[in-house]
Amino acid sequence: MSLLTVGTVAFDKLESPFGKTDKILGGAATYIGMASSLLGVKTGVVSVVGGDFPQEYIDLLESKNIDLAGVEIVKDGKTFFWEGKYHNDLNTRDTLTTELNVLETFNPVVPQHWKTPEVLMLGNLHPMVQQGVLDQLDQRPNLVVLDTMNFWMDIAWDDLMSVIKNVDVISINDEEARQMSGEYSLVKAAKKIMTLGPKTVIIKKGEHGALLFQNEQVFFAPALPLEDVFDPTGAGDTFAGGFSGYLAKTKDYSFENMKRAIVYGSALASVTCEKFGTESLANLAEDTLNERLNRFKELMRFEIEF
Amino acid sequence: MSLLTVGTVAFDKLESPFGKTDKILGGAATYIGMASSLLGVKTGVVSVVGGDFPQEYIDLLESKNIDLAGVEIVKDGKTFFWEGKYHNDLNTRDTLTTELNVLETFNPVVPQHWKTPEVLMLGNLHPMVQQGVLDQLDQRPNLVVLDTMNFWMDIAWDDLMSVIKNVDVISINDEEARQMSGEYSLVKAAKKIMTLGPKTVIIKKGEHGALLFQNEQVFFAPALPLEDVFDPTGAGDTFAGGFSGYLAKTKDYSFENMKRAIVYGSALASVTCEKFGTESLANLAEDTLNERLNRFKELMRFEIEF
Repeated sequence: MSLLTVGTVAFDKLESPFGKTDKILGGAATYIGMASSLLGVKTGVVSVVGGDFPQEYIDLLESKNIDLAGVEIVKDGKTFFWEGKYHNDLNTRDTLTTELNVLETFNPVVPQHWKTPEVLMLGNLHPMVQQGVLDQLDQRPNLVVLDTMNFWMDIAWDDLMSVIKNVDVISINDEEARQMSGEYSLVKAAKKIMTLGPKTVIIKKGEHGALLFQNEQVFFAPALPLEDVFDPTGAGDTFAGGFSGYLAKTKDYSFENMKRAIVYGSALASVTCEKFGTESLANLAEDTLNERLNRFKELMRFEIEF
Repeated sequence: MSLLTVGTVAFDKLESPFGKTDKILGGAATYIGMASSLLGVKTGVVSVVGGDFPQEYIDLLESKNIDLAGVEIVKDGKTFFWEGKYHNDLNTRDTLTTELNVLETFNPVVPQHWKTPEVLMLGNLHPMVQQGVLDQLDQRPNLVVLDTMNFWMDIAWDDLMSVIKNVDVISINDEEARQMSGEYSLVKAAKKIMTLGPKTVIIKKGEHGALLFQNEQVFFAPALPLEDVFDPTGAGDTFAGGFSGYLAKTKDYSFENMKRAIVYGSALASVTCEKFGTESLANLAEDTLNERLNRFKELMRFEIEF
């Protein structure tokens, strides 16, 4: 079982009603890699950082059994940096700073020993970078999952349409699904997006859960109701990492198993929300994950005979 | 099995991106009564209408086996009228007209043969009217469910606090739960509201489903994803009527059975959204309800062993 991901490894600076941070470890591939690796999946990351990226973070990621052979270090460059401030409701945020830095000229290189991953998770990046990683593989993975955002729809629509033809699963949020499809109804949006390539569409609704669509089938998983959401940064990437990691681990790509994968992804995402950055995910005990999976069972289980 | 409800029986005039209506049948008690009666529950309504309320609507409601003995007709008065226009997303709306009319001096009278209902559903009205109905009963019902809205929190807080001390279940939307509790987290909001009286709290999130809280237990039911939401008017009341009607029918007030009741309420609410006003609920075939309950099972069912 192996999962390769491409995405940002970054510095985040966060402010929420509960406090603020200095520059801390962030980035899509960081969360995806940590979630997948937590499930016991051999996980590799393709990314780029600058010479300012601290050894401490490299050590942390490697201690989580994440293979960083595909992470280029540009000695005289600076790591991608994002600064954001959450509003009181934690559902909306303002971006204060985006410094692309080394990401501007990022040319991903897949290490030789990562050319046959079982699952490929294309984290949110320019669609040509995503396609570039797919092109370097020796054979098509059993499953290719793609995450993207409205920004790429705005500036690289044609490239995005090219790469999504080649993926099995797309994971986007509700507003992005509406933008991509031109449909307000998420049911119609998912159907339209399926005609663009992906057989399976995941629509993330943040605190309102996630919908999984495939052909005529639909599954819904709520977000776990939390007493306190501390910082939602990385929740979507953790979800995607948990989803694709669970599928890599079980090697079962059926709709039934994708439902389980959605629940694993949601359980891990709920952990990410409880502290700033990667802190709670990095310190997750196995008992905690099982306890959350049990809470999902309780939250969604009912029996009706009629 | 019997359910008594108090609430508005009204004229609604609606406009949505899909069209507009003249004055049509509406009101909380109309939807609650129709949903409850559809489940085969003996259902009575306490309300008031004006002399302008057409015989055709009375005939329709009676043809649905709703007992209107508690509906006062003020010959020289006018029926409560609400006019609203939905925005393109159907999640937000503007109220264009609210004419209280006969509701302004409404003094509810519970008919003698309705003084021992098994379930009492207090529809959204002034809390003193709700308390007035409870006070007229010969014995406390097995279950008292209350619906309310932010308007009563703003203008009749103390009365509302008085009546909710006496109810078993409160059903409100997410924003109202936040206003009532002063807590943003819905988990915390529900806990706080439980200290005000109701042992069970239902938080409705519209197209994002509904949460059921009791002690430390939580259950979540999504709204059924629909290709088209035509008109959400009455969906919350249909939900409340389906929920309380199902409990009246089964006479089982356990948390497990409340979960089923939530699913029945959600299934019926999805029907209401598909046409203007009461049209789709009034013409519901039994097969349709069962088909929707099956869709809920599919939507929420997953198996995880670990």
